[in-house]
Amino acid sequence: MKKYNFSAGPATLPQEVLKEVKEELLDYNKLGYSVLEMSHRSKDFESIIEGAKDEIRKLANIGPDYDVLFLQGGASSQFAMVPMNLMVNGKADYLVTGNWAKKAYEEALKFGDIKVLKSSEKDNFTYIPDLTDLDIRDDSDYIYMTENNTIYGTEYKEIPDVKGKILVNDASSNIFSRPMDINKFGLVFAGAQKNLGPAGVTLVIVRKDLVGKKDMSNYPTMFNYEIHANKKSMYNTPPTFSIYVLGKVVKWINDLGGLEKIGDHNSRKADLIYDFLDQSKIFVPVARKDSRSRMNVVFKTESSELDSEFIDLAAREGLVGLKGYRSLGGMRASIYNAMPYEGVKKLVDFMEDFERKRIG
Amino acid sequence: MKKYNFSAGPATLPQEVLKEVKEELLDYNKLGYSVLEMSHRSKDFESIIEGAKDEIRKLANIGPDYDVLFLQGGASSQFAMVPMNLMVNGKADYLVTGNWAKKAYEEALKFGDIKVLKSSEKDNFTYIPDLTDLDIRDDSDYIYMTENNTIYGTEYKEIPDVKGKILVNDASSNIFSRPMDINKFGLVFAGAQKNLGPAGVTLVIVRKDLVGKKDMSNYPTMFNYEIHANKKSMYNTPPTFSIYVLGKVVKWINDLGGLEKIGDHNSRKADLIYDFLDQSKIFVPVARKDSRSRMNVVFKTESSELDSEFIDLAAREGLVGLKGYRSLGGMRASIYNAMPYEGVKKLVDFMEDFERKRIG
Repeated sequence: MKKYNFSAGPATLPQEVLKEVKEELLDYNKLGYSVLEMSHRSKDFESIIEGAKDEIRKLANIGPDYDVLFLQGGASSQFAMVPMNLMVNGKADYLVTGNWAKKAYEEALKFGDIKVLKSSEKDNFTYIPDLTDLDIRDDSDYIYMTENNTIYGTEYKEIPDVKGKILVNDASSNIFSRPMDINKFGLVFAGAQKNLGPAGVTLVIVRKDLVGKKDMSNYPTMFNYEIHANKKSMYNTPPTFSIYVLGKVVKWINDLGGLEKIGDHNSRKADLIYDFLDQSKIFVPVARKDSRSRMNVVFKTESSELDSEFIDLAAREGLVGLKGYRSLGGMRASIYNAMPYEGVKKLVDFMEDFERKRIG
Repeated sequence: MKKYNFSAGPATLPQEVLKEVKEELLDYNKLGYSVLEMSHRSKDFESIIEGAKDEIRKLANIGPDYDVLFLQGGASSQFAMVPMNLMVNGKADYLVTGNWAKKAYEEALKFGDIKVLKSSEKDNFTYIPDLTDLDIRDDSDYIYMTENNTIYGTEYKEIPDVKGKILVNDASSNIFSRPMDINKFGLVFAGAQKNLGPAGVTLVIVRKDLVGKKDMSNYPTMFNYEIHANKKSMYNTPPTFSIYVLGKVVKWINDLGGLEKIGDHNSRKADLIYDFLDQSKIFVPVARKDSRSRMNVVFKTESSELDSEFIDLAAREGLVGLKGYRSLGGMRASIYNAMPYEGVKKLVDFMEDFERKRIG
């Protein structure tokens, strides 16, 4: 049976990419060995890593005033690296819109004076707060946002006006899923394992003038953006295979027609499932309507028993990974770039069927 | 033509393992999707990561008093994590036997009072210094060593007596290449990309009583061993695919017969090439005889021109990755666990042939 994997990350990758990876696994480019074995100092790997950067620059129209870095340690490492590197005055203002935003805020507290600018925590993070006229401190080094919140299924509809301040964006779960204007941001980062590739590599896009402004001598060398930028992400051995697959995934988006195209594709998938949820008698969407994520659709039924029954039956039909986040329960359908429309269609058909059998 | 890849890391992996990885690439265990797409919170991935830990415990006879962790960021991150986590008194003593040992020492200086216990730097790191009666400070928190030095091709012949102190070992380039007694160490770490698997994962084996003894509140959460240990290496999304391949490589060593067997295999390969070098009229080994590495055989000819000629001709014969480290020049044959005896035999045959043609 054809399986559709709705996991929140690591997540579905494009079949075309996986087939190429399989094809090349024992012998890349007629070299006689695998990318898994390839020296990161070889010309062949240089082509792979620089090729991946070029695909990213092309896809998001990223100019020479930004560095494109491939790092390790996931978003969790960025939670520390951002304040370590960018807090010149020791102050930053955070938009707390979910668990990961809150973790980033808590990590930043270790390194400076952090203000919560807005938070939707009291309402269980079910919406993105009103972002007009933010009360940003004059001497804040940056504003921090999390553009898509995987657990609660919310997403910013627009990028907030930060009054000329530096804006840092954790875009782990919606990067390259729709057009973006990189020039609105000082730094954007994303763990690869949702929209970009396999786990093990973090993409960081950072404005060049923001790095190297601070004394980093008391911090780990590995947490210094400037060093990674100067060494072109080769300060130490990079996660070579993850970068190789990521490069193929980004090329796949470019080949499809770029961010406008993939954005349309993602909206059609999200509309299909939200339209169903809005008229369903047993499934209830969790996020507030104006804050719905196009990437993570979070919903539930009237009881956790019925949720479990739905999740189990769906898995038997080849619809896997639908269980909601541990602390939240319910269901979550993660429908990133690589999830085909047919996968979402099959899910909605199954939900309709489940509902019909349940209430007639 | 059959290629043999002598790169220092990422390096050759067992063909049997690569074939299995290829076989399973699109559909792991009949799940209908790839390990590259698998949720790290799934039961299937739990089997993979716990299975990999079990293979490691079995291979090196590691008891329940040690944690086995899979982290990101390579040895370079360990250079900071070790002092951050283990320097309770703020003092440590380092054995500086090569570039990486020196980098580890320099990184540790950021976090405490570090003494160089022994160094062979003045002789360009061509040997392991005399390790008898080390002048360890009474209040040092640990002694730091680098068991194999990839650049200069040296390796400890025995583990030094540290008089009951905690010994930390960077075994990145010789781990699981011969029998080891884990009980001699407080902590052993290794980037995977030499003897264990692909780049992107670092194995850390740490005695449980050493973690959680220090206030870590001013350090990045990701650099806290205790948190990774408590979360079973799942504090954040781990490098899933690298761990999957690593598990297969370690199982491959177990299936071969374990560390005694692989140690014999590695000694036979190293003897073959050193025996040739010792009688050669044009090739000269770099490391002092009593300090030779069984993993990285470093040698040169009388001139860099002849070195380049050799490297180019060897590559045409399918013997690739023989170029020495950037700053050192010459040649380096890295012959880790997965390099077959036939590869080393072919290299030595080629060297004999090259020498015969050169001097008759």
